[in-house]
Amino acid sequence: MRQRLLAISLVAGAMIPLASAAARADEGMWLVNKPPVAVLKERHGFAPTAEWMEKMQKSAVRVGASGSLVSPDGLVMTNHHVAARSIQKLSTKERDLMTTGFYAKTRAEELKVPDGEITVLQTIEDVTAKMAEATKGLSPADANAARLKAIAELEKAEQEKTGLTCRVVTLYGGGQYHLYRSKRYTDIRLVFAPELGAAFFGGDTDNFEYPRFCLDAAFFRIYENDQPLKSEHYLKWSSAGSKEGDLALIFGHPGRTQRLLTVDHLKFVRDVEAPAALASLWRNEVKLQSFTGRSAENARIAGDDLFGVANGRKARTGQLGGLQDPTLFNAKVENEQLLRSAIAKDPALAAQVGDAFDRWSKALQDFRPWQKRYAAMNRGLGGTLASYALTIARLADELPKPSGQRLREYRDSALPQVRRNLESAQPTYVNYEVHSLARGLEAMIEQLGGDDPMVVALLAGQSPQARAQAVIGATKLADPAVRKALSDGGKAAVDAAKDPLIAMVMAFDGPSRELRKRYEDQVEAVEREVYGKLATARFAAFGESTYPDATGTLRMSFGPIKGYAEEGQAIPAYSTIGGLFERASARAGEKGFALPASWAAAKDKLDLSVPFNFVCTADIIGGNSGSPVVNTKGEVIGLIFDGNSQSLPWAYQFSETQGRAVAVDSRAIIEALRKVYGADGLAKELLGQ
Amino acid sequence: MRQRLLAISLVAGAMIPLASAAARADEGMWLVNKPPVAVLKERHGFAPTAEWMEKMQKSAVRVGASGSLVSPDGLVMTNHHVAARSIQKLSTKERDLMTTGFYAKTRAEELKVPDGEITVLQTIEDVTAKMAEATKGLSPADANAARLKAIAELEKAEQEKTGLTCRVVTLYGGGQYHLYRSKRYTDIRLVFAPELGAAFFGGDTDNFEYPRFCLDAAFFRIYENDQPLKSEHYLKWSSAGSKEGDLALIFGHPGRTQRLLTVDHLKFVRDVEAPAALASLWRNEVKLQSFTGRSAENARIAGDDLFGVANGRKARTGQLGGLQDPTLFNAKVENEQLLRSAIAKDPALAAQVGDAFDRWSKALQDFRPWQKRYAAMNRGLGGTLASYALTIARLADELPKPSGQRLREYRDSALPQVRRNLESAQPTYVNYEVHSLARGLEAMIEQLGGDDPMVVALLAGQSPQARAQAVIGATKLADPAVRKALSDGGKAAVDAAKDPLIAMVMAFDGPSRELRKRYEDQVEAVEREVYGKLATARFAAFGESTYPDATGTLRMSFGPIKGYAEEGQAIPAYSTIGGLFERASARAGEKGFALPASWAAAKDKLDLSVPFNFVCTADIIGGNSGSPVVNTKGEVIGLIFDGNSQSLPWAYQFSETQGRAVAVDSRAIIEALRKVYGADGLAKELLGQ
Repeated sequence: MRQRLLAISLVAGAMIPLASAAARADEGMWLVNKPPVAVLKERHGFAPTAEWMEKMQKSAVRVGASGSLVSPDGLVMTNHHVAARSIQKLSTKERDLMTTGFYAKTRAEELKVPDGEITVLQTIEDVTAKMAEATKGLSPADANAARLKAIAELEKAEQEKTGLTCRVVTLYGGGQYHLYRSKRYTDIRLVFAPELGAAFFGGDTDNFEYPRFCLDAAFFRIYENDQPLKSEHYLKWSSAGSKEGDLALIFGHPGRTQRLLTVDHLKFVRDVEAPAALASLWRNEVKLQSFTGRSAENARIAGDDLFGVANGRKARTGQLGGLQDPTLFNAKVENEQLLRSAIAKDPALAAQVGDAFDRWSKALQDFRPWQKRYAAMNRGLGGTLASYALTIARLADELPKPSGQRLREYRDSALPQVRRNLESAQPTYVNYEVHSLARGLEAMIEQLGGDDPMVVALLAGQSPQARAQAVIGATKLADPAVRKALSDGGKAAVDAAKDPLIAMVMAFDGPSRELRKRYEDQVEAVEREVYGKLATARFAAFGESTYPDATGTLRMSFGPIKGYAEEGQAIPAYSTIGGLFERASARAGEKGFALPASWAAAKDKLDLSVPFNFVCTADIIGGNSGSPVVNTKGEVIGLIFDGNSQSLPWAYQFSETQGRAVAVDSRAIIEALRKVYGADGLAKELLGQ
Repeated sequence: MRQRLLAISLVAGAMIPLASAAARADEGMWLVNKPPVAVLKERHGFAPTAEWMEKMQKSAVRVGASGSLVSPDGLVMTNHHVAARSIQKLSTKERDLMTTGFYAKTRAEELKVPDGEITVLQTIEDVTAKMAEATKGLSPADANAARLKAIAELEKAEQEKTGLTCRVVTLYGGGQYHLYRSKRYTDIRLVFAPELGAAFFGGDTDNFEYPRFCLDAAFFRIYENDQPLKSEHYLKWSSAGSKEGDLALIFGHPGRTQRLLTVDHLKFVRDVEAPAALASLWRNEVKLQSFTGRSAENARIAGDDLFGVANGRKARTGQLGGLQDPTLFNAKVENEQLLRSAIAKDPALAAQVGDAFDRWSKALQDFRPWQKRYAAMNRGLGGTLASYALTIARLADELPKPSGQRLREYRDSALPQVRRNLESAQPTYVNYEVHSLARGLEAMIEQLGGDDPMVVALLAGQSPQARAQAVIGATKLADPAVRKALSDGGKAAVDAAKDPLIAMVMAFDGPSRELRKRYEDQVEAVEREVYGKLATARFAAFGESTYPDATGTLRMSFGPIKGYAEEGQAIPAYSTIGGLFERASARAGEKGFALPASWAAAKDKLDLSVPFNFVCTADIIGGNSGSPVVNTKGEVIGLIFDGNSQSLPWAYQFSETQGRAVAVDSRAIIEALRKVYGADGLAKELLGQ
């Protein structure tokens, strides 16, 4: 589960589907501005009020993946694996907080996270009509460009007006556009993190499995003006905890589902996109294992990246497994047939949809031969410094243009984050940068061939390893001040610097822009237009009371705490702290199963019957990591950190037969804070004592 | 180095080049029937006699990879990693010889290896003229078929005449054909093997690196009529050992080099074949890590397969690294230009070669779109039982045909080995078979797509995992007696058995045969014809005194024991036993670096100054694992077990700047046998005492 439910980054962009025709069971990642009150009432006898919803919305936070405010003093709860990158940034060769864990007994000891950022959603506005206006009568490619321009302008205007971070979100694959306004905090401090061995007990073997025994929790505190945030909204801790059958409600940021793709689109994912993405993960996993195996320091530097890759690989394997199952796929085929029949029966609808299905199938078919190249270019050159170099080179080219005409990630509303990343004090490591760039150059040769002109230009006659050593050895970009000076100085400063790494990425910049334009015009534009039409058709045929596919925005999901059956065995809903000791003993000597010394030492003090982890049927996916689990009173009863392997096909289709969300029980967090980590102060703050 | 120099199995078959234009330095894997006496004399003052060569030839053995007879009582020395599969077969859950090591103090304790086989080359005959006669005036595709037929008939006739195992070997990519007659022994018993931790100290991290500290040695004994073989030829142990600068001579079975491929062929390897092969290895490595991580017993069952994959991945990575280096590649381009110029200058030669270069380039270009499918089909379905099933199904179809018209691996001369494999008592494991078959089915979907008719037929509407569980659960093929009965019973017995696994592989059989025929006709036939012509042209232009690319047959190579420089540091030729203890201490706690308990216990007794491993410049490659290193007197001074990373590009081009063969020093073997393993009897036998 490390990184488990972090949103998985995607190879070929986009692909966002329509609303579900008929949500089954407790399926659904619901928009917080359109909560399924009737469904909840009917199915679980619970009707959330507007006040309840507002409190949940403003207690939920975005912190990479998901998190929540859990005290009036700005305390934020999330997963250890969500916090891992921050913990890693705060570690050095001498003080590796991943290995040791961390607890600040006093506020003065709380550690400020470099480049920390937490946002809290304030308001949502439907701007679909504005987007329709901006694109009226245009061809798909022109409409796509015009929409990007309109989004950039709207976000900028809203940002200036409100002082909030404003983002336009594409829903229903282009059926609706919503403007999200969020408050952004950048003084984030680490309060508590257990050691990796406790957070990720069971390692890669147990990841996505159940029962589990993980304390995958960490706490930050938001500061404002150097003082802890006085949070108006936050979640109280449940004093009673939960029991099997209780309704669990989850607020978080599921990253991406593809539940209503067309069948031909699903085939494209199954046969082209997903295998290519997995192949890249297998490659990276093996390469990172080699690198981390070379020394303990290498393991410290790149360990979190390796875990991230292994986690993404396991998630994607399970997802692709769903698509490779003819049973699931045939259900998808039948589902599409229902929509096609409904459209065919209604002449107005049929006229409106036209040949949308066929055009989209053809666009995907035409995309097949160059998907490999597109995916390779999307992965970039490799390494943090090369990524800085490309950002600097592109900023110099893009900033002189009007915001709406830039590459979208450089539009005005996105610039603060771009600069923050660029000027990060996070250390880089020469040997890891050389490794990453050399392996990236090799990947380019593997994917594009050694005679590709861009590849030839990138290598400049050297082997990938020699070239990477040369440019990483000579670049000045490891210094944040140099990066700031170059990005502030614009094109003249960049040209004058003659940095060899920037010179190298220039060979990548042109072909990359060209291919991206081709993708936007020939794939994304058709996709937006077609899914927009299909969404409208679906609303017309099946009604509008459904949820859009996940897009990384705040959603609510729910379902009872409930065990399941696997290979004839009953898997109970709860594990216990005692189970940790049993499993550590049963798997002694195996990788990932070492009992943390802190827990071994505390064994006699611990109540072994305290529930440790539990499962529920709520609908989650990568990005939900760190989501609070609350009861109907809005009190914390758990902390989502994983889904079991049977939940992985939820990317394409929900099923609660065996699929489950996995959470840390709130009672285990208190028990561990008090008896394992001597963190009574934190436990008291959570309990409001 | 585990498996390090085992021949690497190849994805798209064939590809064997021409004779080298001008061997540089001590480059060369020389045919034992054409030893480079003049070169050796001139360069090293050593002129091997015919008797010396015969003794070496008949002391060298083939045992999977390479090995040698080292006592008059049939004792055979090879690497631990060559013996690993046998050691694995002799292990059980209760007695894991990989972990514990093994030593038979008495002959009665020697363990008979299931399906053991060792062959010793007796005579070689040039049959090029016979092959030319058989194919005269035929088109490339017809000539290829006629040649296969002629080979099958010749081998059968020779085998019946001599009682020896007879094989026709293709040399110079089709320029020459030699008949190899070998004596075959099948009663092979394990005498000694150290524990894996000593044989493979440093693990994947140190594999292909230097300095090293590995006791990668194992000993078998050949039995004949239940008595130790009285070996007429064997290698004596050097009493003095070696020193830097000494000439090292190596006899072994290098598997494959591709040093004289055409430039367009090399591009095909660089851009298509090698990346596809590596991608498959990355995939397998990650999948096998997941499987072995699940339990200690899984690790025992599949550990050796995992090591094999990791080793192949590291070797292929280094090889591809050579092709991805523009410096090496440009040298290849220049080299081809020399040949093309020589041909152009000679009208007779030009007429003979014709448009061979272009036709071969076009054949490879045409192969590109279906190479992925071909490679996937070549990898087969996955698992030992599925492989048995295919063999049984094919035997039933092939045996009624004349030998020369069968799939070549079922020709009469190959049948004893086929039956031996099929009837092997080697245990299979249900969970590993399910894993292997399910992962194999998934790979078919990934490579061919979910709508491919063969894929649809293989899955029969189930998910890969469910399908694999169903057929592995129901097949009777785990029982050797059932396999024997079915292969003896022919088609009627196979049809009557209705075994679900055989039924499943039938869906694979047809498409696989079809694609293979296409490959043979459209790729291999052109390849043989073109390289045959280019070999003749090369002989005409540059003379015939060169060696053919490696093909797995016995070769001699040589070069002095010599250190090298790396990143400004001098790497000494020898490591010492003391170095093992230093490295184990420096890398304490890291994977692969645990000091074996047996060595820790023996530390005080050991002479820490004894040389442990050494390097020399002799030209080797995968398949040379287990090759004896001898001095000019023909005495053992070492045992090849690895090449350093800089030797990996030798697959395409030799260079002794940094590339080195890595060997266990003969003195370390004696020191360890006596003081670590209490194997004085074995040490005495080696020393002739």
